[in-house]
Amino acid sequence: MKKIMVAELKESLGKEVVLRGWVHRLRALAKTAFVILQDCSGTIQCVGSPDLLKHTSIKLDDAIEIKGRVRPEPRAKAGFEVDILGLKVLNEAAQMLPFNASADISSVGQDILLDYRPLALRNEAVGDVFKLQAAMIAHFRSYLSSQRFTEIFTSKIVASGTEGGTNLFEIKYFDRVAYLAQSPQFFKEYGVAGLERVFETAHVYRAEPHATSRHLTEYYSLDLEFGFIDGPEEVMQLECELLTHIFEQLNKDFEPVLKRFGQGALPSMLSVPTWEFSECLDRLKHAHGRTDLVDDLDPQAERQLCEIAEQENGVPAVFVVGFPLASRPFYTHPRGGHGAAQSFDLLFRGLEITTGGQRLHTRSGLENALRGKGMEPTSFEQHLRMFDLGMPPHGGLAIGAERLTAQILGLTNVRQTTMYPRDRYHIAP
Amino acid sequence: MKKIMVAELKESLGKEVVLRGWVHRLRALAKTAFVILQDCSGTIQCVGSPDLLKHTSIKLDDAIEIKGRVRPEPRAKAGFEVDILGLKVLNEAAQMLPFNASADISSVGQDILLDYRPLALRNEAVGDVFKLQAAMIAHFRSYLSSQRFTEIFTSKIVASGTEGGTNLFEIKYFDRVAYLAQSPQFFKEYGVAGLERVFETAHVYRAEPHATSRHLTEYYSLDLEFGFIDGPEEVMQLECELLTHIFEQLNKDFEPVLKRFGQGALPSMLSVPTWEFSECLDRLKHAHGRTDLVDDLDPQAERQLCEIAEQENGVPAVFVVGFPLASRPFYTHPRGGHGAAQSFDLLFRGLEITTGGQRLHTRSGLENALRGKGMEPTSFEQHLRMFDLGMPPHGGLAIGAERLTAQILGLTNVRQTTMYPRDRYHIAP
Repeated sequence: MKKIMVAELKESLGKEVVLRGWVHRLRALAKTAFVILQDCSGTIQCVGSPDLLKHTSIKLDDAIEIKGRVRPEPRAKAGFEVDILGLKVLNEAAQMLPFNASADISSVGQDILLDYRPLALRNEAVGDVFKLQAAMIAHFRSYLSSQRFTEIFTSKIVASGTEGGTNLFEIKYFDRVAYLAQSPQFFKEYGVAGLERVFETAHVYRAEPHATSRHLTEYYSLDLEFGFIDGPEEVMQLECELLTHIFEQLNKDFEPVLKRFGQGALPSMLSVPTWEFSECLDRLKHAHGRTDLVDDLDPQAERQLCEIAEQENGVPAVFVVGFPLASRPFYTHPRGGHGAAQSFDLLFRGLEITTGGQRLHTRSGLENALRGKGMEPTSFEQHLRMFDLGMPPHGGLAIGAERLTAQILGLTNVRQTTMYPRDRYHIAP
Repeated sequence: MKKIMVAELKESLGKEVVLRGWVHRLRALAKTAFVILQDCSGTIQCVGSPDLLKHTSIKLDDAIEIKGRVRPEPRAKAGFEVDILGLKVLNEAAQMLPFNASADISSVGQDILLDYRPLALRNEAVGDVFKLQAAMIAHFRSYLSSQRFTEIFTSKIVASGTEGGTNLFEIKYFDRVAYLAQSPQFFKEYGVAGLERVFETAHVYRAEPHATSRHLTEYYSLDLEFGFIDGPEEVMQLECELLTHIFEQLNKDFEPVLKRFGQGALPSMLSVPTWEFSECLDRLKHAHGRTDLVDDLDPQAERQLCEIAEQENGVPAVFVVGFPLASRPFYTHPRGGHGAAQSFDLLFRGLEITTGGQRLHTRSGLENALRGKGMEPTSFEQHLRMFDLGMPPHGGLAIGAERLTAQILGLTNVRQTTMYPRDRYHIAP
């Protein structure tokens, strides 16, 4: 007998098969017992005599094997059922569990969902988050590969930070100190000078002491960087096309999931507007009477701006440009001479999901910028040397995968879109 | 004028275009100057008057822009050349560099290649290593996705090791100690109990004090794990199909690269033999008079076994099974009652590139195994709990991406297949 998956049953009508999976639901009537079996490809109703269940005591979430015959059954959703010929428990679940995989887990706390991660993942309300996230990241990579970007895999153990040394985790590295990388920024730039277009998908680390709904100490960063650009507009244009591609694919493959999470189809991002930082402040003042913002936006402002954008354009998304240079990292390219940066944020459905921009590409520009931030260029010599090798004008961006997943599914906390979230208080499981 | 890439020139015959890239080669004759421009899509010969080069002094590895007209030229390799109408330097390379990107870098030391990474990456002898590696990893992922595996992204910050606490890097995590993950093994197993089939591609960390040609403190691990197996043979079978798929794709897309590295087409892995550990010892004794091996193979034995396999089967690869259980991690499934493990190594072209096997899937089995290794089950309670949730019989494997890349290209040191290698002595660049 052939071991097959639920999704392959339709090719085995009338045949004997072996299925393996979990007991998803159980129902015993006077004359018939129903076992809904779940594997990674779907669920199927299996039917047997109540005696069968007496001999083999099974319960929800046991790992089992069913030998059976596939019988056409017009009343079944799939169009067929499996008549149970034999049933074997492969590994029992415990008698008492805090929830079952097929239960409504909307009221189960996040800590319990983590402590019993496999059960949670087997439940579609959690499992589908991570299946969609995996697909989203796969489309990020494949779109960029189609645009001649090369994927790079750069070290997360670094000798110093990219942004001046704050919020770094220290590693005891043999007899010295190293740090966990906050960003692949420098490596991406070296990649541009070598391969012109590069991307990386990997964890980055911030020793962020505050546990907010949008911050983690370890998050998955979707990074890209490319050379020979004229300005940050090319980076924004690429992001519009990239996100539109990802969203189209997700609309195609995850329509039922999006619906279950209360979401309609994801929008085209091709006509997301670009607003100046100063214009954002004006709009916030005009629409909400806000006068408290100076050199950056806050979470409330991000929500308010997306609302305004949605009213005007139908899509709750906006690129914000022209941030004050002073609040951006030293490698940020200035725009004109009035203290503005050639960088941008993308706000989507009320949350900043991307920071990007054009970077300085000349050694002298970087040296001046370092001095302007009170840092000594000589201590960056190993980094600056990479700009002596024909570094082209370049820019790039980083998308937080957990944040984007949350915004796609309408979830309010990045812990819901992280399989094993890390914050100040959690390093296990 | 349209900014295009070298690879798109053939669609612009007779037209004016803008190209951006690096000066790959330069040649000035009495009446003509030749500039070979390189971008991420290829190289193209551009032709102008020597005067042009007098006005704009350019040199190798400068980042430049060329405005020109694409002219059919039957003598050119591409079938066309670009007549230079204008030339602009976007960013100069330094006057003195230790090597140029277009040079023969076979005698340039590894430290120099790292200190000037962009130049090295622009040279095909280095750049192609990483382009092939990126493709190899992309095919790893896409093949597994086609087999219903879900990609997972698990934390690299962990509270304890998976293999008993040796060779761990310590992280100062706020006011306590955490560690860098040595393997996603536990997370993969939780993933199996939730999603049935999972894979991950990510860095893992070993505080390995010895700097050998095959060891790094940070390497990229291609991990997979799946449930409802009957034994490790299913894992080996999947690996044969997976590697054969990857190799077929690389043969198709990287034939010229493989040739340049002195390699023929990569073999089919579908009929790699499986040898018992004891049989391997017998073969080594018979063929090489070796009697020094007891409970594991050494690098020389791996080379010798692959040679024997090649003589017998035409492919220098062999699965070794039946290793002594005592030398394997506690979660390894035993085979029979005589102290052998349900695990395997895959040797390929003289090097171990994979360790895999079936794992224990019951709580009681794991508790016994922990006690057998002198560890206390209660201190693993958070981990053991995950085996109360209907954990199916399961197994998996891990492939070292740097090692596999090295074996594919015939390189002798994993530092050559790591963009930014980390060992005891290197944490930068």
